[in-house]
Amino acid sequence: MTPPTDPSDPSAWTGRFSPRMAHVRASEIRELLKLLDQPDIISFAGGIPDPALFPLERVQAAYAAVLAENGQAALQYSVSEGLPALRAWIAERMTAAGAPCGLDNILITAGSQQALDLIGKLFLAPGDTVLVERPTYMGALGAFNAYEPTYAALDLAGPPPAGARLAYVVPDFANPSGRTWPRREREALLDLAEAGDLVLVEDAAYRELGFGGTAEPALLALDIARSGSIEAARTLFCGTFSKTLSPALRLGWVCGPRAVIDRLVLLKQGGDLHASTINQMVAARVVSEGHEAHLERLRAAYRAKSEAMQAALARHMPLGVSWSKPQGGMFVWVTLPPGFDGAQLLEACLAEERVAFVPGAPFYAVEPDAASLRLSYSLPTADDIDEGVRRLGRAIAARMGGAMAKVG
Amino acid sequence: MTPPTDPSDPSAWTGRFSPRMAHVRASEIRELLKLLDQPDIISFAGGIPDPALFPLERVQAAYAAVLAENGQAALQYSVSEGLPALRAWIAERMTAAGAPCGLDNILITAGSQQALDLIGKLFLAPGDTVLVERPTYMGALGAFNAYEPTYAALDLAGPPPAGARLAYVVPDFANPSGRTWPRREREALLDLAEAGDLVLVEDAAYRELGFGGTAEPALLALDIARSGSIEAARTLFCGTFSKTLSPALRLGWVCGPRAVIDRLVLLKQGGDLHASTINQMVAARVVSEGHEAHLERLRAAYRAKSEAMQAALARHMPLGVSWSKPQGGMFVWVTLPPGFDGAQLLEACLAEERVAFVPGAPFYAVEPDAASLRLSYSLPTADDIDEGVRRLGRAIAARMGGAMAKVG
Repeated sequence: MTPPTDPSDPSAWTGRFSPRMAHVRASEIRELLKLLDQPDIISFAGGIPDPALFPLERVQAAYAAVLAENGQAALQYSVSEGLPALRAWIAERMTAAGAPCGLDNILITAGSQQALDLIGKLFLAPGDTVLVERPTYMGALGAFNAYEPTYAALDLAGPPPAGARLAYVVPDFANPSGRTWPRREREALLDLAEAGDLVLVEDAAYRELGFGGTAEPALLALDIARSGSIEAARTLFCGTFSKTLSPALRLGWVCGPRAVIDRLVLLKQGGDLHASTINQMVAARVVSEGHEAHLERLRAAYRAKSEAMQAALARHMPLGVSWSKPQGGMFVWVTLPPGFDGAQLLEACLAEERVAFVPGAPFYAVEPDAASLRLSYSLPTADDIDEGVRRLGRAIAARMGGAMAKVG
Repeated sequence: MTPPTDPSDPSAWTGRFSPRMAHVRASEIRELLKLLDQPDIISFAGGIPDPALFPLERVQAAYAAVLAENGQAALQYSVSEGLPALRAWIAERMTAAGAPCGLDNILITAGSQQALDLIGKLFLAPGDTVLVERPTYMGALGAFNAYEPTYAALDLAGPPPAGARLAYVVPDFANPSGRTWPRREREALLDLAEAGDLVLVEDAAYRELGFGGTAEPALLALDIARSGSIEAARTLFCGTFSKTLSPALRLGWVCGPRAVIDRLVLLKQGGDLHASTINQMVAARVVSEGHEAHLERLRAAYRAKSEAMQAALARHMPLGVSWSKPQGGMFVWVTLPPGFDGAQLLEACLAEERVAFVPGAPFYAVEPDAASLRLSYSLPTADDIDEGVRRLGRAIAARMGGAMAKVG
């Protein structure tokens, strides 16, 4: 029998894929950034934790202890909602941070990326609208796209557009902008969410990495303060151990009303059964002792790198370039003069200056502004930060006449 | 402002969920089986590996070595397709088993459960038909349901029904039936898949656990033999380390044409970025030495338990009850006399006999046969197997008059 289509023809496969795949595309940027392993490139692209800051000795000790004391359980299946000891630690910490909750308000996920995927799966049907910041976290779009939503810019002046279901925000030390939402904007967002019956997704990936200023209350905490209890809240708080402990364990969590967590548990079960048992046991052990001192060490290290980058930007950027001044996290957002294209600049920088970053456009779900880029300072040394920013400044300056002429 | 719906009312949440959630339901059986932790219950319910057979010492040594030699990389982000060393080992093993392939034909997943979820996400749109065995693996239905398919019984006499996209089978030592597909049925399935341009999903979770009889070729191997290369094949082979190494690592794989693997990698990236780096490094290390001897130990242990169960069934089951005789894996399928209901029998067995199993009906996507149940022999001792089957036989015998009367 001859098959109706020829499987050896890759385009034949395209016809077999679900329509959702029209929304799921390889990122050209990610492809480009795969080429960054050359040692002479100074990279501000990553946005990954400095591995020198991993609590390696404590993690080693925890794996050894967990396997010695409870090895058979550590290697066995476990429940989809996650290890009770780890959920209890998280619930206590959320409660202490102003979001009173219990074990049953927590689902352990494979990093906060999976939290976003499961939330998209639970709430989004094709054509639903997700409200996002401009710029927003590219990875969230990667998670939501599979559920075929449309996007609109989040506008606190409201009202939300018809069909809006979810609002997704990174309110603390955001990826990519480095921005932190002030209290009054958080309150305005909650007003908007109530008015439009929106589900609020609070991506708190960098929240623990503040540089020492006053922390703003979490959206979930403000929501609970208004609504009286987590069960009456509409905010889903997505936390992660990827930035504070290790991304390789693939552990994050969602904290929210039980009515939502219960459904997310079902989707987690159908999706991958549960998070790694042994990694959950190790994380519970590592955070139970010395975690605050470890966080202080991280904050100090990233603050020093951030200061190095701010100094380098002030030193090397030509007039007409502006940038954010993060109070935590790993990112600076750079606004280029009008007419610049971050993607073209990246190609030139890789070829001529051996410095890398992520162009700004892919961080926009709507109305991309190409004259922007994201710098991460989490990985390079202070010396490399200065040298890399010097190269970047030189590349921008070399192009400024032309770019300005184009728009002027 | 008053919200249009009241978030403190759990039913208000129902109205916010995607229509897909009408297909995603809690399993009553799973809820019931959560109550099985009491020590006086003999459970044939689980279907989980015997933890006494985990290669604990080798796993301990591997975590210690990986963290000592390469700790920073082990705790860092890694690529979505999976660790090259682990993919290389899998590709070699697949090649040796008659399915020649390379690194780029392998995606590492969070167990084979995630492989099924990603395959559903890639291929299924609402209303598409998935062909399944009767009975089939409940967890596969749990993965696919979120993509809102309909199901039809796989019928090798063909032709496949209109709208059929995927056929899902467990051809070796199946969960739940214990059945192994003979060669001619495998060939007939490939004929059917070609005729209907179906994607074949081969769930090989138990394939490595044969009791020593002649192994049938994998569907993927037969497919490649026909089509000339894996790139021309239509079979996606889903493997796992959960039954042979440890389920807690959450590591499995899909092996298939690059055109499919490339898309699955995108979905993996959007779904949870990548599988645990450290767990992949540990698995690669553990399987690289002594794996064959370990598999032989597993096979011998499960064969002994299977033989104990066959003997117990022959000894204790009343006339009118029949059961499968698996040549590998962890499961026996029991057919009760007409009129019996496995779920009612379970309730009675828990209350009166303190023995547990999984009723058969939930394993059917279409036309459930309630007069069936699944027994797993992987966890209990040979003594408990005999005693548990004795209790089960007694419970069935006590009800036979009534049940027979009902249908007779």
